[in-house]
Amino acid sequence: MQFESLPGFREFYPEVCSRRNYIFSHWRKVARAYCFSEYDAPVLEPLELYIEKSGEEIVGQLFNFEDRGGRAVALRPEMTPSLARLIAAKANSLKRPVKWFNIGEHYRYERPQKGRLRAFYQFNVDIFGEPGPAADAELICQLVQSLQSFGLNHTDFKVRLSDRDLWLLMLASEGLDEAASADVLGIVDKLERTDRAKALEKLIPIIGANAEQFLEKVERVIAIHDFDTLRAFIESLPLEGERKTAAEQRLSDWTLLMENIESAGLSDYLKIDLGIVRGLAYYTGFVFEAFEASGQGRALAGGGRYDALVKKLGGPDMPAVGFAMGDVTLVDLLESKDLLPEILDAPDFMLVIGGPEERKAAMLDAAMLRSIGYRVNYPLKDQGFGKQFKAANQSGARFVLIYGADELAKGMVKVRDLTSGGECEFDRSSLQQSLSEVVENGLSSTEG
Amino acid sequence: MQFESLPGFREFYPEVCSRRNYIFSHWRKVARAYCFSEYDAPVLEPLELYIEKSGEEIVGQLFNFEDRGGRAVALRPEMTPSLARLIAAKANSLKRPVKWFNIGEHYRYERPQKGRLRAFYQFNVDIFGEPGPAADAELICQLVQSLQSFGLNHTDFKVRLSDRDLWLLMLASEGLDEAASADVLGIVDKLERTDRAKALEKLIPIIGANAEQFLEKVERVIAIHDFDTLRAFIESLPLEGERKTAAEQRLSDWTLLMENIESAGLSDYLKIDLGIVRGLAYYTGFVFEAFEASGQGRALAGGGRYDALVKKLGGPDMPAVGFAMGDVTLVDLLESKDLLPEILDAPDFMLVIGGPEERKAAMLDAAMLRSIGYRVNYPLKDQGFGKQFKAANQSGARFVLIYGADELAKGMVKVRDLTSGGECEFDRSSLQQSLSEVVENGLSSTEG
Repeated sequence: MQFESLPGFREFYPEVCSRRNYIFSHWRKVARAYCFSEYDAPVLEPLELYIEKSGEEIVGQLFNFEDRGGRAVALRPEMTPSLARLIAAKANSLKRPVKWFNIGEHYRYERPQKGRLRAFYQFNVDIFGEPGPAADAELICQLVQSLQSFGLNHTDFKVRLSDRDLWLLMLASEGLDEAASADVLGIVDKLERTDRAKALEKLIPIIGANAEQFLEKVERVIAIHDFDTLRAFIESLPLEGERKTAAEQRLSDWTLLMENIESAGLSDYLKIDLGIVRGLAYYTGFVFEAFEASGQGRALAGGGRYDALVKKLGGPDMPAVGFAMGDVTLVDLLESKDLLPEILDAPDFMLVIGGPEERKAAMLDAAMLRSIGYRVNYPLKDQGFGKQFKAANQSGARFVLIYGADELAKGMVKVRDLTSGGECEFDRSSLQQSLSEVVENGLSSTEG
Repeated sequence: MQFESLPGFREFYPEVCSRRNYIFSHWRKVARAYCFSEYDAPVLEPLELYIEKSGEEIVGQLFNFEDRGGRAVALRPEMTPSLARLIAAKANSLKRPVKWFNIGEHYRYERPQKGRLRAFYQFNVDIFGEPGPAADAELICQLVQSLQSFGLNHTDFKVRLSDRDLWLLMLASEGLDEAASADVLGIVDKLERTDRAKALEKLIPIIGANAEQFLEKVERVIAIHDFDTLRAFIESLPLEGERKTAAEQRLSDWTLLMENIESAGLSDYLKIDLGIVRGLAYYTGFVFEAFEASGQGRALAGGGRYDALVKKLGGPDMPAVGFAMGDVTLVDLLESKDLLPEILDAPDFMLVIGGPEERKAAMLDAAMLRSIGYRVNYPLKDQGFGKQFKAANQSGARFVLIYGADELAKGMVKVRDLTSGGECEFDRSSLQQSLSEVVENGLSSTEG
């Protein structure tokens, strides 16, 4: 082959494409069940939009270039900045809470590897305008039910729930300032995948002599997995004044969030896990990630609250919470659990055509049946009956319509049910009505 | 606003997005009715793929750049080269005829104007492996039925049908060689939008002294709109040997194509019009464009046969015919005809919740109803009954589920049909069953 597609980009042959569409249709169906509205935004955006949100260091991961008009542009690596701009531009006219979702492709110049491509689809789900934890709970429930819709259950995946605000309060209680806290959270973020000695080494310049003691404290926090222990931990934080009030608010938010998820009957899917802090600095409250329950593999989805971003991108103060789910790790997981159905796009009706004269009648009926949405196929070239019946059987079609000279002379067409073997002749003048009944009830083998 | 999207790129707020999805769903539904399979290919491709197909001059219209790996890449301006590559790579294992479609976005760096954007969607439909005109007819019928599915009829649009091979035979009969023929077709392509004197001026260097006479002949060919005249014209061409045989084959192909479209009952949509030659040199037989019947506005769709392209892109000999329909001019036309429905994504059930205790029951039922695909909404925050009923009415929901303390104490929930005003209480333990009946039949006002 002279030409190949670029590394990290996928070709979707029909079988793979119907699998992709299967994923999309489930995402869309659950989002609609939650009464979220679909939106979309350009695939190509001004580069500055991503720099403003994520800093200059994002540029190294982008497909960015200068367009013919001299604009610095980039293929979107994620949806949130475009979304925040859309929201910011119409913040005052949108009915709150704004509940939106998107299914779209995103692009990052990364080394392609298992579970990571340069072009991937994401399901982005966000709520704007609702500051309370009911919004966070609504999203976590939707995340869970999206994954459930594929046949996954709480033995397959967990949503690990954490709280960046709580971390900041805990680190403040240790006497760390904002910059030091951010550095520590960067280390906590990677703790699970880092050698302990290396993590300690990184903590020493920030914490000093007490680094070992500090790390042990962090490890105890990360080991908290039940709500009673978490409550006791929050209540025990040595905070005063505003920070004390903030900690009380966090506890109250945690309580409501846990209650809501329990009310929805989805507690089994939730795991308190403060080891999750999400790399991105713009998260401001609860953060969560869905992982395979085995703990193996990459995150299936991640999200959290980002109350400051809309304002940063030019809009008003607008609380926000959202999550994104990618298609790549999801498909890997569904494949490993044998949860991807074989999708067979079989015709409803295969037409078997006697010859050129009979073809005329067949084509008229085909156009009529297709216009009302039936899937109809027939050979483009004249073929013998045997070959046509063989093709009909291979196609998976349930019914064959037989256009023979004898039947057509009577104004009739013969219908065969390939499942039961039943046959019946129908008047072509009322074919639509007859066939809709046949599709509903089939033809019994005695009708032949 | 600090940030704006790029010129020629669209933002899809929910209302606009549901309109886009409405277009997509009709395209997809008709393609599936014709038993075409959906595929997709990368949005970013090697630049050489487009140069190989269309020549260096295409580059000026592209979003192209060098990626971080030093590869010359471009955002896809059209689907056909990627498609031909996919087909070429698996030509020998694909069951023929290969009937594929795609709905995808494409990108061209052009001056944005009415009906032309820098990012636009296209519906691409192609048949590979079938050389005969039955394939061309199948595509023309699908093109017509796609547009019909939006409520357009033969008074709204026509498919103008032409034949590049026939043009080449006619020009050969005039003594023109390949290069001169290509130049003349370039002029014919623009004749409709060009001043006659300017066209003549361009013809003189190719044709010489007889240019005026030649142009009159071309004008007579373009004036042919009925099949009998076309037949007489083809039969009258002064050709010999191979060319004579080729002209006879063209006539036979025309006859079969016209017959098939007539058989499907779609002749009213077809207009013979040799003024269409399609700009792209790779077309090899029938070419066609769908236009508004008024003749105003840009083409809605265009296509034709391109039997040589798969081989050119590294595959085997593989006959091909296809068409593409864009979303931009289509939406303009549907808007002008008032054929874009108001799409209201109303909830099936709006939950009205008495207070925090009642919310628990409501959330459990919401998760259950959503898991079976119902669209369910409720206020994230506690609100008074009046405000909730007002929101329910505004939402367009058909039913309200009322979670009051009294009903819940009895294990019941009250359902109100907002259309009829009917009310009924149902046992929560069998709510799914009861509500599926309510959705089916409604609640009469006497049931209250």
